[in-house]
Amino acid sequence: MNLKSLENQATGYRADKSAFIDALRWNNDGLIPVIAQQYDSGEVLMMAWMNRQALLETLTEHRVCYWSRSRNRLWRKGEESGQVQRLVEARADCDGDTLLMIVDQTGPACHTGRANCFFWKFEGEEVELDRSPMVDPRDLYGDK
Amino acid sequence: MNLKSLENQATGYRADKSAFIDALRWNNDGLIPVIAQQYDSGEVLMMAWMNRQALLETLTEHRVCYWSRSRNRLWRKGEESGQVQRLVEARADCDGDTLLMIVDQTGPACHTGRANCFFWKFEGEEVELDRSPMVDPRDLYGDK
Repeated sequence: MNLKSLENQATGYRADKSAFIDALRWNNDGLIPVIAQQYDSGEVLMMAWMNRQALLETLTEHRVCYWSRSRNRLWRKGEESGQVQRLVEARADCDGDTLLMIVDQTGPACHTGRANCFFWKFEGEEVELDRSPMVDPRDLYGDK
Repeated sequence: MNLKSLENQATGYRADKSAFIDALRWNNDGLIPVIAQQYDSGEVLMMAWMNRQALLETLTEHRVCYWSRSRNRLWRKGEESGQVQRLVEARADCDGDTLLMIVDQTGPACHTGRANCFFWKFEGEEVELDRSPMVDPRDLYGDK
């Protein structure tokens, strides 16, 4: 399956899921970038990575599972913090190199206790930290 | 500058832009993934990549410029199609490995003529193409 050849299909066209997943542009580490967006507010929560197993588990369990590059293992979002992402809708882009997970996030998405990870805002010659934590991260992960 | 060490700073903390850009986690190709989001609707439009030069130009010109991995050159979004992205706000995430550009998109963001690139939706054992083009892509790029 070649996604480029399918992009002019009519709305409503359906492809087989397994063949589609094979056609995604997994990088050399077998990973694909994934954007998580809050379903009701539209807020972009975070960006992380999935391997094939993480994607399949996410689609089956309707709970988002990533691949942690730092821990080199599956990372079921919220497994430590309780801040899970329930899957509302899973999408892929035109050239199959990015996924979009539309989710219902429990609590803050960011490990810092902020609602989302994008709390650095470019402002002229500076970058400003402009979001406060919703909760103390020590209450999510313990005081490590 | 180490972003991890700054994440517990108080809201309103400001860092120097150049030092912050140095601290971003550019990959081995000198690139960072960038999410583009429509400022008013919250719609996630696309994901692409920037190098340092593309980011600096975007911040200066307030018009989004990416690095095209396929063409191996700067790609001023809309340079061929006219479908430019005016920059409203530029953000970076907690660990400095993803950027979020909040933009005002002229016309469709996707090269297929669709409003955004995420037109493949996972549905059970299939993946459905569920968005129609806003315009014929031949009207954007000519009939190549």
